Amino acid sequence: MPSPSHPSHPSPGPTPGARIFADHAATAPLRPEAARAIEETGRLLNPAGQYASGRHAQRVLEDAREHVAELLGADRAEVIFTASGTESDNLAVQGLAYGAKKTRGPAARRIHSAVTEHPAVVETVDWLCGGVPGGGTPQFDHVALPVDGSGRVQVGESGAFDAARDALVTCMWANNETGNLQPVHALVQRATDGGVPFHVDAVQVVGHLPVDFHALGAATLAASAHKFGGPKSMGILLARRDAALVSPLRGGGQERGVRSGTANPQGAAATAAALAAAVAEIEVQHRRLGEYRDRVLSVARTIPGAQVYTDPDGGALAGHAHMAFPGAEGDSLIMLLDVAGVDASTGSACSAGVNRASHVLTGMGVPVEVARGALRLTFGTATTAQDVDRLCSLLPGVVDQARAAGMAF
Amino acid sequence: MPSPSHPSHPSPGPTPGARIFADHAATAPLRPEAARAIEETGRLLNPAGQYASGRHAQRVLEDAREHVAELLGADRAEVIFTASGTESDNLAVQGLAYGAKKTRGPAARRIHSAVTEHPAVVETVDWLCGGVPGGGTPQFDHVALPVDGSGRVQVGESGAFDAARDALVTCMWANNETGNLQPVHALVQRATDGGVPFHVDAVQVVGHLPVDFHALGAATLAASAHKFGGPKSMGILLARRDAALVSPLRGGGQERGVRSGTANPQGAAATAAALAAAVAEIEVQHRRLGEYRDRVLSVARTIPGAQVYTDPDGGALAGHAHMAFPGAEGDSLIMLLDVAGVDASTGSACSAGVNRASHVLTGMGVPVEVARGALRLTFGTATTAQDVDRLCSLLPGVVDQARAAGMAF
Repeated sequence: MPSPSHPSHPSPGPTPGARIFADHAATAPLRPEAARAIEETGRLLNPAGQYASGRHAQRVLEDAREHVAELLGADRAEVIFTASGTESDNLAVQGLAYGAKKTRGPAARRIHSAVTEHPAVVETVDWLCGGVPGGGTPQFDHVALPVDGSGRVQVGESGAFDAARDALVTCMWANNETGNLQPVHALVQRATDGGVPFHVDAVQVVGHLPVDFHALGAATLAASAHKFGGPKSMGILLARRDAALVSPLRGGGQERGVRSGTANPQGAAATAAALAAAVAEIEVQHRRLGEYRDRVLSVARTIPGAQVYTDPDGGALAGHAHMAFPGAEGDSLIMLLDVAGVDASTGSACSAGVNRASHVLTGMGVPVEVARGALRLTFGTATTAQDVDRLCSLLPGVVDQARAAGMAF
Repeated sequence: MPSPSHPSHPSPGPTPGARIFADHAATAPLRPEAARAIEETGRLLNPAGQYASGRHAQRVLEDAREHVAELLGADRAEVIFTASGTESDNLAVQGLAYGAKKTRGPAARRIHSAVTEHPAVVETVDWLCGGVPGGGTPQFDHVALPVDGSGRVQVGESGAFDAARDALVTCMWANNETGNLQPVHALVQRATDGGVPFHVDAVQVVGHLPVDFHALGAATLAASAHKFGGPKSMGILLARRDAALVSPLRGGGQERGVRSGTANPQGAAATAAALAAAVAEIEVQHRRLGEYRDRVLSVARTIPGAQVYTDPDGGALAGHAHMAFPGAEGDSLIMLLDVAGVDASTGSACSAGVNRASHVLTGMGVPVEVARGALRLTFGTATTAQDVDRLCSLLPGVVDQARAAGMAF
């Protein structure tokens, strides 16, 4: 790995002034509305308690559930609080898969998903389709949904879905790396026509684009509170009441038996408060961040060899700018940006700070050596026009230096 | 269900003064040290971020991990942060079961557990031993560990454990209803002698009794932060590095691949702070609460027909007083106490406010009609000597009234 701080590669140096946080897609700063809800509900006790303080905690929990339901076009009973987007995806994908076996028998064994899904879905599907040690012969088969060069599922080439053979279809609403939107409505329609349940990983979308769960028609939908300015350790799973969902997480049966464990009314209240604030400003932020994104992408396009993966014309989240600069290592780009006071990501280091070529980009057909030069800048509530000015002026130099570092290596 | 608020059954009436919280085993009030840690770490962002704020968040997370490890006699790498005790139990029991298949093959199929375990373990074992739809033929068999009349596993009658046939043994350290301690050290020794991994559900013990994970010798150990004054939505799983643990929760691979999902440095810091405060006062609280418990139990014993299940002589948590009053419904007891300003539980309503006869008591051989009259009072940091005075003077009258209500029904 090249060392951008080595004296032979002059660094841009720390810029005076505040740092720029351009990694909102990883985690968004806590919204003041959520912080206030946390403060106000800090003394809540056991929501299962059959006494005054228990009933109060229960009321706070149920009010939050109702609020989240209203904001997402769902019924209150369809809102299940979990501890993360990853957990929501696991409970939905595993739960629908086991539910399919239970209600439709052993022949319902195909799970459809694209290669460009988040690891929370990719790894879960792998687990079901062969990875479960002790599961004997795998009970599920994976069918890859075909994607085009922007990572979007090609609906017309996805074949028909059939309740007799297909356990479920799962698709993210927007990709966490590129920000590109998937044709989830058309896909849900096809699955529903075939009587096959559909899971939508909407972790990047909830709070950023309008979501109407009933209009969408999916069986389940996953979200994560800290992606829209809520607290960490809080996720949302929307699950239709008629969805056959057999949860692999077992216990006391809280949250409709889907997500056992003592409920967290404080976390739920903070989640609802953050979601309400996020939903209220979707239009304003979408316009504001879209302008920022377009400016950054147009500067990126002036850099020789640059590849831009975010595709606003085909539909994309407003805050995502994902690109690659062949000849530069993604690691070098984010280190140089860090030194210059910018928090950025390659987009694929979600797990543990280990940078590999993104499976999303290689799944889109991007060569590994190009994918290794990926940079993801994601904007959100904390981003200012001044941040974008500074980013636009920094970017070409940072790419030059990262490329120089790569050659020196 | 009798209605204790019916005019024909005079209620004890609300007592002036503060309410008594006697349900610490369900959830403990947040400790000030945890509240302070939450305040101080509220602005932390993405601990996986490869930039200044990410490294800072990571440092807070790792400091908390190290602190928890020190307090529980574990190595830092053995501490896995989860979202609840239930999740920790699921990851350990399912993880060790799948791990056994992976490393020792299909013959390692027996899971040993007692009927008196918490639902987080009972239901998980049921899931593995036949409940997994789509799993085909069950891959695991349940073997019940024999228990005596206090719910304690009879070590001498548990048979030998054998790595060739036994996937794992799981046992709680202290029962959540009775507070009675299990002979976990002797059981772990037997399992270890046979080369079989052992999981300890220590949700009721961590922060209440000294825990030395290495001295215990178990493969895994589960805890829950809100049971010792930490935040909700935070659990701990200790897992030896040589434990074959194949996690059923899939995703980005955080927390050693056992518990995927964005880590929560704020929650981890608050967990460590609460645990440090709890551990520091174990001796003082054990003595103080034990005296309270003994006073309440001796008053309970004066009530005709009373059954006392907490067995301090055989080893029990200091804060638990679990008993039953045949002829009274547990529901009536806790409603009457509620009206009198006391927050109490039957002990078995962990899930959803639905009272059934406790599986723990029936597992101990208590007849269903007796078990339905159960009452659990659990004391902790918030309990005062005055609370105990009031409880002792209230209890006989409350039992009388609940019995009268039962007869009228």
